[in-house]
Amino acid sequence: MRAAIYNGPRDLTVGERPDPRIQASTDAIVRVTLACVCGSDLWYYRGQSAHDQGAIGHEFIGVVDEVGADVRDLRPGDLVVAPFTWSDGTCELCRAGWYANCLHGGGFGNHGIDGGQGEAVRVPFADATLVKVPGFGHSDETLRSVLALSDVACTGNHAAVSAGVGPGMTVAVVGDGAVGLSAVLAARRLGAERIVALSRNPARQAVAREFGATDVVADRGDAAVEAVKALTGGLGVEAALECVGTGESMATAFAIARSGGMVGAVGAPHDVVVPIDTVIFRNVGLRGGVAPARKYIPELLAAVLAGEINPGRVFDFETDLEHLVDGYDAMDERRAIKSLVRVGAA
Amino acid sequence: MRAAIYNGPRDLTVGERPDPRIQASTDAIVRVTLACVCGSDLWYYRGQSAHDQGAIGHEFIGVVDEVGADVRDLRPGDLVVAPFTWSDGTCELCRAGWYANCLHGGGFGNHGIDGGQGEAVRVPFADATLVKVPGFGHSDETLRSVLALSDVACTGNHAAVSAGVGPGMTVAVVGDGAVGLSAVLAARRLGAERIVALSRNPARQAVAREFGATDVVADRGDAAVEAVKALTGGLGVEAALECVGTGESMATAFAIARSGGMVGAVGAPHDVVVPIDTVIFRNVGLRGGVAPARKYIPELLAAVLAGEINPGRVFDFETDLEHLVDGYDAMDERRAIKSLVRVGAA
Repeated sequence: MRAAIYNGPRDLTVGERPDPRIQASTDAIVRVTLACVCGSDLWYYRGQSAHDQGAIGHEFIGVVDEVGADVRDLRPGDLVVAPFTWSDGTCELCRAGWYANCLHGGGFGNHGIDGGQGEAVRVPFADATLVKVPGFGHSDETLRSVLALSDVACTGNHAAVSAGVGPGMTVAVVGDGAVGLSAVLAARRLGAERIVALSRNPARQAVAREFGATDVVADRGDAAVEAVKALTGGLGVEAALECVGTGESMATAFAIARSGGMVGAVGAPHDVVVPIDTVIFRNVGLRGGVAPARKYIPELLAAVLAGEINPGRVFDFETDLEHLVDGYDAMDERRAIKSLVRVGAA
Repeated sequence: MRAAIYNGPRDLTVGERPDPRIQASTDAIVRVTLACVCGSDLWYYRGQSAHDQGAIGHEFIGVVDEVGADVRDLRPGDLVVAPFTWSDGTCELCRAGWYANCLHGGGFGNHGIDGGQGEAVRVPFADATLVKVPGFGHSDETLRSVLALSDVACTGNHAAVSAGVGPGMTVAVVGDGAVGLSAVLAARRLGAERIVALSRNPARQAVAREFGATDVVADRGDAAVEAVKALTGGLGVEAALECVGTGESMATAFAIARSGGMVGAVGAPHDVVVPIDTVIFRNVGLRGGVAPARKYIPELLAAVLAGEINPGRVFDFETDLEHLVDGYDAMDERRAIKSLVRVGAA
C-alpha cells in the first residue's frame, strides 16, 4: 500500500509499505478515507521529538475492510473513527476511563504500528478501540468534523474537562492551534460563560470567535497576563487551558489562573517548568495529559451528528496522500491551522 | 504580654510584646489557651524560610476577651478556634471557599500580625475568621483535637480533598509528620478503603494505624515506590498525598500515583520539581496548597465533638509558653511529632 514513511527530521516521503494483515483475532483492517496532520507530528518533523523510522500519523477515519474472528461489533463496510491510541477496553485503567493509558495499548503511527497517514491500518482491539459512525451519506463537512474527533477535538475537550470547566465559568485558552481552538469549542459546549482566547493571528481569532470565544487577547507574556486580569476583575480565570506545551505557555497559564483555579494542560511538554509556588501558595491545580479520546468520542460524535458542534472547522488546508508533505509544511510555516489529507474513497 | 519573639534562625525567645488592642471595628482580641508548633515553624527556626523578626506561631485556640463594635457573632467568654489564616469571608475568593487566598487576608504570626505563640492575639475580621466552639466543660482530649483544627487537621484534609479522595479509593500518604498523619485520618473519614502510610518511625506508624492506615511501607525512594506498587497490583494508588514538600517526597508521590490518579500536595515546597512528563503522559494531576482551614473547620469540629475523629492524637510533646523552645527542639530533633504549648487558663 501507499503510506507515509518517516525517515528522519525533515525527511518524510510517501512510498510503499506492507499491506496490513489481521494478526490477532481482535484486529480489524481499516481502509483510511480521511487523515490529518497533528501538531505533535510537527515535533517529529522538526526533529524536536524522537520518532521511529517508518509509519507515521495517528488521526484517521475510514471503512472497515476486514475483521478478525473475535471482532463482534464491527463488520466490513462500517464507517469508523479511530482515537489516536488503541486500547483493550478491559484493563483497570480503561475501566476507569483512562483509555490512552491502557495497560496493553499504544499509539498509532509509531513503534511498528501502522500510521493513519497511509491507505490502511491494522487496528488492535478493534471493538474496544474503534467507534462506528452511524448513518449513511454524511456530508463532507460532517466527515471533516468526525475526523477531528480522532484527536484534536478530544484533546481540547480533555483540557477543559481536566480543568473542571462547567456552566457559568470564566476560562482562558493559551494556544491558538487546532487544539487550543478545540478547547475553546469544548469550554463553550461545557457551559463556560466567559472564554478568553489568546491569539494574535486574525484567521485563528476568527475561528476562536466562531467556536465561542467571548474575548480575544492578542498580547503575549506579561502583557497577556495583565490583559486577562484586566478582563477578569484582577482575579484571573477559573480555568486556564494550556494547549501548547512550552515553558512560556505553561507559565502564562498559571499566571492567568485565579487562586483556587485550575490549569488544564494538554500540550506535549518541551522545557516546561511547573511553578510549584503558584500551585501551593495560590492553590492552582494542574491536570491534563494525553486525552482518553475513546471515552469522549461517543458524546462528541453525537454532538457532531446533531449539528451542535463543528470541530472540523479547524481544517483550513487540504491535500492528498501523495502530497502529504505540503500539509506538514503548511502547518510548519503556520500558513495552516491544521491540514486534512484525502486518502481513499469512502 | 508574654509572647514568643523570633529573632532569627535558632534564636527564639519568650519575652514582652505589646498587648494587642482593637484596631478595627471587626477585630476581636483572643486570649490564647492552647497553641502549638507547626512543621512550617521549623523551616523558619532552621533558617530555611524567611520570617520577620517578632511574633511567631499561627495555630491557637482561646477565649474571646474583647470585640470591636461591628463584631456580631462573638462575645467575650466564647471559646474559639482560629484557622491559621484570617479572611474577610466576603471577597470573591472567600465566597468560592478559598479562605486562605482571601484578597484582604493573611496569616497569623508574621508580617506584623500577632502570633499564636503568645498570650493574646488580635484577630482581624473576627466573625469571618474565628469559629466558636459550642458547649462547655470540654475534656483536655477534646480541646487538643480542637487545637489540631487550627491547621494540621485541615491541612491533611486539604491534601485528601484536593486529590479527590472518596469512598472505596486506594490512597497513599507520603510524610509521617503531623500533617501526613492527619491526611491518613482525613482519607479514612472520606471513605478510602486502602490507605498506605509511608513511615519508618514506629511511634508514627502506630498513630497512622490508629488513624486508619491499612498498610505501612517503611522503605524510601525507589524501594518505597516498588513496595506501594506491589501492594496495588502494580498500578500504584489513585491518590498520593504529598505532605512533606521536598523534591524527593514529590517525586515519590508522582511515582506511586497510578495513571489517571491525583497527587494532593500540601507540603511547603523546597526544591520541588513537578515531573511534567508524568502529568502529561500518565495523566497524573496535582492539586493542593495552603489549606482553606476556615472552610473545613465547621465540619471537622462537629466530627471532633461527636467523638468521630481525634486529630489531637498527633500531639506527643507538651510544654508551656516559657519553655516554648523545648517544643521546637523536640520536633527539630524528631523526638516529637508535634508539640502542644499550654499558654493560658480557659
